[in-house]
Amino acid sequence: MAKKTIIVFSNDLDKVMASFIITNGALAMGDEVTLFFTFWGLNVLRKEEYIPVKKGFLEMMFGWMMPRGANRLGLSQMNFGGLGAKMMKHMMQTKNVNSLPELIATAQTLGVKIVACTMSMDVMGITKEELIDGVEFAGVASYLGEADQANVNLFI
Amino acid sequence: MAKKTIIVFSNDLDKVMASFIITNGALAMGDEVTLFFTFWGLNVLRKEEYIPVKKGFLEMMFGWMMPRGANRLGLSQMNFGGLGAKMMKHMMQTKNVNSLPELIATAQTLGVKIVACTMSMDVMGITKEELIDGVEFAGVASYLGEADQANVNLFI
Amino acid sequence: MAKKTIIVFSNDLDKVMASFIITNGALAMGDEVTLFFTFWGLNVLRKEEYIPVKKGFLEMMFGWMMPRGANRLGLSQMNFGGLGAKMMKHMMQTKNVNSLPELIATAQTLGVKIVACTMSMDVMGITKEELIDGVEFAGVASYLGEADQANVNLFI
Repeated sequence: MAKKTIIVFSNDLDKVMASFIITNGALAMGDEVTLFFTFWGLNVLRKEEYIPVKKGFLEMMFGWMMPRGANRLGLSQMNFGGLGAKMMKHMMQTKNVNSLPELIATAQTLGVKIVACTMSMDVMGITKEELIDGVEFAGVASYLGEADQANVNLFI
Repeated sequence: MAKKTIIVFSNDLDKVMASFIITNGALAMGDEVTLFFTFWGLNVLRKEEYIPVKKGFLEMMFGWMMPRGANRLGLSQMNFGGLGAKMMKHMMQTKNVNSLPELIATAQTLGVKIVACTMSMDVMGITKEELIDGVEFAGVASYLGEADQANVNLFI
Repeated sequence: MAKKTIIVFSNDLDKVMASFIITNGALAMGDEVTLFFTFWGLNVLRKEEYIPVKKGFLEMMFGWMMPRGANRLGLSQMNFGGLGAKMMKHMMQTKNVNSLPELIATAQTLGVKIVACTMSMDVMGITKEELIDGVEFAGVASYLGEADQANVNLFI
């Protein structure tokens, strides 16, 4: 048994899907996997519904403009205002490939450790109440501690 | 001798060039290198000529819109509809830096292992006939098996 | 004590910040860290002031269009012609998070090794005089030598 870590920096649908496909593969093979969501990646962990939280003006604006949750992510290219992401999801469904929310649910069932970067949360004004259940909160020291024990460490 | 793996997720000319420069450096030093092409990265492996394959409508559209082969990639920034990529290629030629197709040929001569992700191929409707020779086909379990044996694993 | 390497390929403010936050965390924990700046990442190392250097036309154009130094980088998304980066910097300041130039200065104080990729410099026509002090110059073989000794290697 070995450990893997992935820093999920991106909130592009395609890159986040890749993160979870690697994660679920590793979990299925008996590895431990820790995912550190930071910066844009935090949006993957946001609850879909609007959570009323007191915020500053810029935080509110960023909160509005960034996607709320795994269902609303766009592609890293050929997104065309969301049309590309819609087409991609349709193609995945046709091929019986799990959707991102399903991949996340599977990862959680298989025991993934999901960590949200508290420093990014602070900068972007994202609060714990806005994130899905089952998320831990930590900073860069925690990431480095885990990466030191892992044999594969990716930045996506 | 050590092993390296790179997941080539991107089809940006600059990032794919970086992947092969690292690869060829490692191969020259006696390392084994396995490159896993997934998602947009699959386009790097497409043959330049149009290969007639029966596809669904969305698959056909994606196939048209995505670049066909290493010669048609754009830059990750300052691409300006291909002009940036053209300028970059010209600058590389002036400095006697190998082009991407030359870097790929060198890697193949030096014994790189090139793997195309079958799940991505399925989702995007890319078939084996459309890809260049010398490519192996596998999934995430194969990647993890190799990454476990490698001492450097990158996601590009 | 362990060693870390990061290839800083990007010149996006957010990604470069992430690179230095990881770097400074690792340095603070007693690790050695080597950062390889290549391609767009070289712009992070450029001096802010214009340095007159004899260049070809394309090199000059690229030099003009690319950001000159850590203070002028844009965000990887939601940049809106620099407005997004300005907003992000303001939010960081409000939360007492160090700016990128401060993070770089801290890394240098803590003993980071900063390497500029000579091949990229050559291709993009960036000269040593244009880069900040304290930078070493090397190529891919040097990167691989260090990565072989490191236990965490990231590509950002």
